[in-house]
Amino acid sequence: MKLSHSFIKTLREVGKEETAKNAKLLIRAGYIHKEMAGAYAYLPLGLKVIENIKQIIREEMNAIGGEEILMTALQQPEPWLKTNRWDSDMDIWFKTELASGGELGLAPTHEEPITNMLKTYISSYKDLPVYVYQFQTKFRNELRAKSGILRGREFLMKDLYSFCTDKATHEAFYHQVEEAYMRIFNRLGIGEDTYETFASGGIFAKYSHEFQTITPVGEDTIYYNKDKTVVLNEEVLNDEVLKDLGVKCDELESTAAAEVGNIFPLVYKYSEPLGLEYNDPSGQRQTVYMGSYGIGVSRVMGVIVEKYADDKGLVWPKEVAPFKVHLIGIGSAGEKAALDFYQQHSDEILLDDRDLRPGEKFNDADLLGVPIRVVISDKTLAEKSAEITERATGKQKLLTIDQLESIL
Amino acid sequence: MKLSHSFIKTLREVGKEETAKNAKLLIRAGYIHKEMAGAYAYLPLGLKVIENIKQIIREEMNAIGGEEILMTALQQPEPWLKTNRWDSDMDIWFKTELASGGELGLAPTHEEPITNMLKTYISSYKDLPVYVYQFQTKFRNELRAKSGILRGREFLMKDLYSFCTDKATHEAFYHQVEEAYMRIFNRLGIGEDTYETFASGGIFAKYSHEFQTITPVGEDTIYYNKDKTVVLNEEVLNDEVLKDLGVKCDELESTAAAEVGNIFPLVYKYSEPLGLEYNDPSGQRQTVYMGSYGIGVSRVMGVIVEKYADDKGLVWPKEVAPFKVHLIGIGSAGEKAALDFYQQHSDEILLDDRDLRPGEKFNDADLLGVPIRVVISDKTLAEKSAEITERATGKQKLLTIDQLESIL
Repeated sequence: MKLSHSFIKTLREVGKEETAKNAKLLIRAGYIHKEMAGAYAYLPLGLKVIENIKQIIREEMNAIGGEEILMTALQQPEPWLKTNRWDSDMDIWFKTELASGGELGLAPTHEEPITNMLKTYISSYKDLPVYVYQFQTKFRNELRAKSGILRGREFLMKDLYSFCTDKATHEAFYHQVEEAYMRIFNRLGIGEDTYETFASGGIFAKYSHEFQTITPVGEDTIYYNKDKTVVLNEEVLNDEVLKDLGVKCDELESTAAAEVGNIFPLVYKYSEPLGLEYNDPSGQRQTVYMGSYGIGVSRVMGVIVEKYADDKGLVWPKEVAPFKVHLIGIGSAGEKAALDFYQQHSDEILLDDRDLRPGEKFNDADLLGVPIRVVISDKTLAEKSAEITERATGKQKLLTIDQLESIL
Repeated sequence: MKLSHSFIKTLREVGKEETAKNAKLLIRAGYIHKEMAGAYAYLPLGLKVIENIKQIIREEMNAIGGEEILMTALQQPEPWLKTNRWDSDMDIWFKTELASGGELGLAPTHEEPITNMLKTYISSYKDLPVYVYQFQTKFRNELRAKSGILRGREFLMKDLYSFCTDKATHEAFYHQVEEAYMRIFNRLGIGEDTYETFASGGIFAKYSHEFQTITPVGEDTIYYNKDKTVVLNEEVLNDEVLKDLGVKCDELESTAAAEVGNIFPLVYKYSEPLGLEYNDPSGQRQTVYMGSYGIGVSRVMGVIVEKYADDKGLVWPKEVAPFKVHLIGIGSAGEKAALDFYQQHSDEILLDDRDLRPGEKFNDADLLGVPIRVVISDKTLAEKSAEITERATGKQKLLTIDQLESIL
């Protein structure tokens, strides 16, 4: 991508009503645009990051047998009335009205419609297990939305749902998801700060599990033992749970953390009221055993920003970066050599070919946060080289033009 | 994809409230699921078709300089009040309320927020032209929605917007889009039935242009001369237009058609009330000259179904098909050879490895509509061959196993 051909610009200032570091930086760098509190548009570079995050999640979901689908945002009341989540349980609905009559809502999550839909496809134990997931824009009518893209009124989520005959099959898959999630967070660059955390399980299960990334802007508080082998959400910090997990209160420390994923044994919570059943081998009707597994895609992007950004701007881990290389040519020979290299690898390179002073381009490269900056100038060309700078560390080296492809 | 691993099933019957051929077939074949009239979920094969259509459009949009972004569905009233489209002009809003107070709407289109956003990025003639597009779920509160995925209350659209300094630049780009659209419809397999059609232009332009695909289920009526060099929408069939286009009423024939795309010279319709201006080279403030360009992605999928389907089921053109090959092994040696071939090319093949009779598999292959069916049986293996059947024509031939890769 040539910056001269893009409409995006870096901005000096961001409206003062925006207080979250992640959103301020992403707006300044031209990755996102704020429509209202909790609703952001994704501009070309921001959309590339989102798509990279989605692709990593997609690969890991497919690897454990997930099938990708896409449900609707518009929801009719019926299935949600059966599970008691239309009126009483959730205060986060955006509700609307059909012109032809009847109330509708915008899905804040999708257990009900997916469970309901699968009644068409599941009738026998031979039809199970089923693992379906989607990347879906969710709508939640948050009273406050002050954390930038960490908490949206409209946000992108990956939600996976499992449908099994029994607890043992469910638990084996649940464990596969636990492992897939850690692979995902490692690939996304937040693995070392992300801990699987005990959280409350609801009616049917003792615990659910959250994936909490330690960050000062996180809205949750987690407690952990010294070597972080036991991590739990504040909401389950009680004597019974401590005994259960074999830890004592005074050996725990606490920190703020952001929930980037959660996995939940739903058991019969939705399948029972919605009547999702199957015939077992003996012909008996049985209720399907369910689980749900979420990752907040746009929230993950925000957490990555919060973790890596420094006082110069964004810093992207390689796997999610919008481009591999930020390329700047200086002087006429440098500009020409840069353009040559760009034209051979245009999908992987962000070329700053704008009519600006080098200093402005360097500042923008720092703000945009592409992992490797490459500068080709008349000076480096005198040594048949280009200057390579790692955004994260500032480390510099010279590479000959012939070696330049090795960084892609 | 192995059918034995997928939750989808072909269905014998579809609820009788569904009357559209496209939706009935897509539901029976397990491509989509009906949530309510005008809102359909996309199941694995349906989502693949949607993604294939998007990718073709994306390639052509990028080729003419389009930059992909993603706006929000949630809309605040302000910009729409300025253009008079919040209350009076459009009766198709879904409106909702913020928990913290204030009315919101779900975007039925995106001229206002995109124009409004670009005020941040456009200040000088040097910032123009700008061409941005998105694939966005649109919400329209249709009173009736009886055409399956041809007319949705929630549907996927590609919308492109152009921002130019002047009419000449605009018209050059407008012409590029006309050509890109015909390339898109050709690649999608509906080019020969799709005509660029004169339609009404609104306040600022005499005409807009629609891309109308001739189909008996289309909701529009178009008129055309003998060699179809002049095609116009019924809405502009009047003496002035006929004179303008140099045709006479009695030489025109009419037919039903579905609008799969439209392109529109907006001129100053949105930039003026929203104040999107730039400084020209002499420092004078000028209003940005706009155009908009839509393609109904899910509608196109429906039109493809309507055009190609036969009495056995769906028929997909090669470029949009969910898989290239539908593979069936019969008998133990046939099943083993099929599995071998599948494992080498699993991304391109739909393998029916279910425990069903061959006749049922053949019927399902016809219903699912993958372009090429390959059957490997003990009988074909005796000739070291596989049987190839074109779904569209029924033409059959034998290919040796070694030659089989040539069909991918």
